[in-house]
Amino acid sequence: MLLSRYFIKNFNYLRIHGGSGEIMDPQEIMKTYKEKVEEYLREFFQNKRKELEHWSSREACEVLEEYTLRGGKRIRAILMILGYKLFGGDDEEIIKAASSLELIQSYLLIHDDIMDESELRRGKATVHKIYEDFHLHRGYGGNPQRFGENMGIVLGDLANAYAIEILSSSDFSPERKIKAIEKLNEIIEYTGYGQIIDIYSSMVDNFSEEDLLLLHKYKTARYTIEGPLVMGSILAGYTGEGVEKFAIPVGVAFQLQDDILGLFGSEEKLGKPVTSDLAEGKKTLLIIKALERGNKEQRREILSALGNPAVTMEQLERIREIVKNTGSLQYSMELAEKLVNEGKNALKDLHVKNEDIKKVLLYLADYMIRRNY
Amino acid sequence: MLLSRYFIKNFNYLRIHGGSGEIMDPQEIMKTYKEKVEEYLREFFQNKRKELEHWSSREACEVLEEYTLRGGKRIRAILMILGYKLFGGDDEEIIKAASSLELIQSYLLIHDDIMDESELRRGKATVHKIYEDFHLHRGYGGNPQRFGENMGIVLGDLANAYAIEILSSSDFSPERKIKAIEKLNEIIEYTGYGQIIDIYSSMVDNFSEEDLLLLHKYKTARYTIEGPLVMGSILAGYTGEGVEKFAIPVGVAFQLQDDILGLFGSEEKLGKPVTSDLAEGKKTLLIIKALERGNKEQRREILSALGNPAVTMEQLERIREIVKNTGSLQYSMELAEKLVNEGKNALKDLHVKNEDIKKVLLYLADYMIRRNY
Repeated sequence: MLLSRYFIKNFNYLRIHGGSGEIMDPQEIMKTYKEKVEEYLREFFQNKRKELEHWSSREACEVLEEYTLRGGKRIRAILMILGYKLFGGDDEEIIKAASSLELIQSYLLIHDDIMDESELRRGKATVHKIYEDFHLHRGYGGNPQRFGENMGIVLGDLANAYAIEILSSSDFSPERKIKAIEKLNEIIEYTGYGQIIDIYSSMVDNFSEEDLLLLHKYKTARYTIEGPLVMGSILAGYTGEGVEKFAIPVGVAFQLQDDILGLFGSEEKLGKPVTSDLAEGKKTLLIIKALERGNKEQRREILSALGNPAVTMEQLERIREIVKNTGSLQYSMELAEKLVNEGKNALKDLHVKNEDIKKVLLYLADYMIRRNY
Repeated sequence: MLLSRYFIKNFNYLRIHGGSGEIMDPQEIMKTYKEKVEEYLREFFQNKRKELEHWSSREACEVLEEYTLRGGKRIRAILMILGYKLFGGDDEEIIKAASSLELIQSYLLIHDDIMDESELRRGKATVHKIYEDFHLHRGYGGNPQRFGENMGIVLGDLANAYAIEILSSSDFSPERKIKAIEKLNEIIEYTGYGQIIDIYSSMVDNFSEEDLLLLHKYKTARYTIEGPLVMGSILAGYTGEGVEKFAIPVGVAFQLQDDILGLFGSEEKLGKPVTSDLAEGKKTLLIIKALERGNKEQRREILSALGNPAVTMEQLERIREIVKNTGSLQYSMELAEKLVNEGKNALKDLHVKNEDIKKVLLYLADYMIRRNY
């Protein structure tokens, strides 16, 4: 969510403050790609529905279509397109191939929604809740919640199959497609490991900085930034090598900044209560370092707030002070800055075919740790 | 399970009653393939564990290895190898590629176990139960069942990623691999639709013969027989065309015979109570036709037994009579016979490269409706 908002604002900034003029109006490009991706997805679902024989298959397909198209900024698809252009790709078929990532996103979100027992996603019912409602309204026998979750598991799996279908049937050479599928598969695998670390994070006492950085690497840096960029570059005929040296550190830095804003931001800019991260018990690097460096009293203060749904603004203020006084805030900020510089230097050294796209990515990297929302 | 037992016995029969002698000892071949597939899977898991950075990833990998290797007859992998040999394939790399299907099987079974709330699979704890036990023994906070199911969802997804990794990294040409992945993806997709029909089957009143035949086509014929054979043939350089004309009708016939045995078999040969199918409320073709053709009294008799966990042997006997007297048994048997003949004729007309394998498949087809266990 934050990443999306960031993209929009950032591209706006680029356009106003001196991007490459009419050729490279990033906001316009983003908007165009987003629309094209959604147009392709609509077309895909329309054709898919037609080939299905059973009403329950068509119903599942319609639920997936609505869920996938009800919103979302298409960040992963757009980054895959940028990765493709960065290495000189210029075929419109990339729109189709990149759309697969939005179905992967549906796949993972549908399963996440079940795990988190979330009732809403983008302001509407989650897939398992949609089916739970079907159950209740149609008067089926058995347990509505079990039925809803079972259908959610199957529909998530279906979204994954749709994604692979789209990517493998796109009009690129089999060599490039196999490599892109291998990369996609790898990021799905590592998102799984990240999800496991995430599930464990709130349950184990010794959740460390190392654990946290792996979690950010798997769930944010690889899945959202590196994977899409590399997949695009592979389809453009590049090996993908070197892209990770930019994308991984920048992706981790992005998540560190996200966690800083989660504790020090304002409700207005965050779009959620500033106490949310604390109430959810999120073990961010800020918290981990403060616990490590704080004295007994400070540790007690933090632990009494962490995972406490009734955490107060006064507690939040005291924890902000502890995070500052122990040097934990400084530590996170310096690490984010270091990672962004590392990523930028790697990208500068990378030989690409489209320097305009490189500039956009360098700008994005800087913005990662400058933004305040 | 029945399919596996069938294979072993059948191949035994072939060997004794005149297969093609020392070259084609089917039981020996089956055993060899099974061992090779398991050997590859063990090697895969060993290498995978080594590349994982976090203890929780390694733990997940170990749980998947134990679950995948604790048993199973490797029917799908073996059929994929047979499909490959049928069209002249002779590279040992097919062992690796075919092993992917056993991880797909783990993927679907792990998710199925959650949906069915099963505690045991092949005599040991299901994946979600293994993690539920971890939760209880390690004293984690929160809900152990939720934790177990969440981990089950993620580990199923991981098994799917492992399967695609194995297939896409096998040493076949990218052209053939892309086609094999497309086919694999298609059967996973249709297994999903089959699962949805299955979930609905016990919940809707108007579950029809047409619904049931689609369910058998998706969940048994395509997933277990047609898909593996076609994937193998694709990797051997064949288009796969025509194989489905054999595999789909034979696969559906297999399931029809399975349902007949489920109602008319003996506990000894079935390996489960003969009342199981009735108690589970399974809407087989036998039940659907008997409900359609029976009078009011007969319908009442069936409906009072269907889905009744306390169904008696006396009720079972009365329902067997109804199924016979209404001609419903005859209807299922004739349909199975018709489908098998349809499949055999299609296979006879098919130009293949290995006639010995064709004979094995023709024999298998006949056996589908002759077996009594």
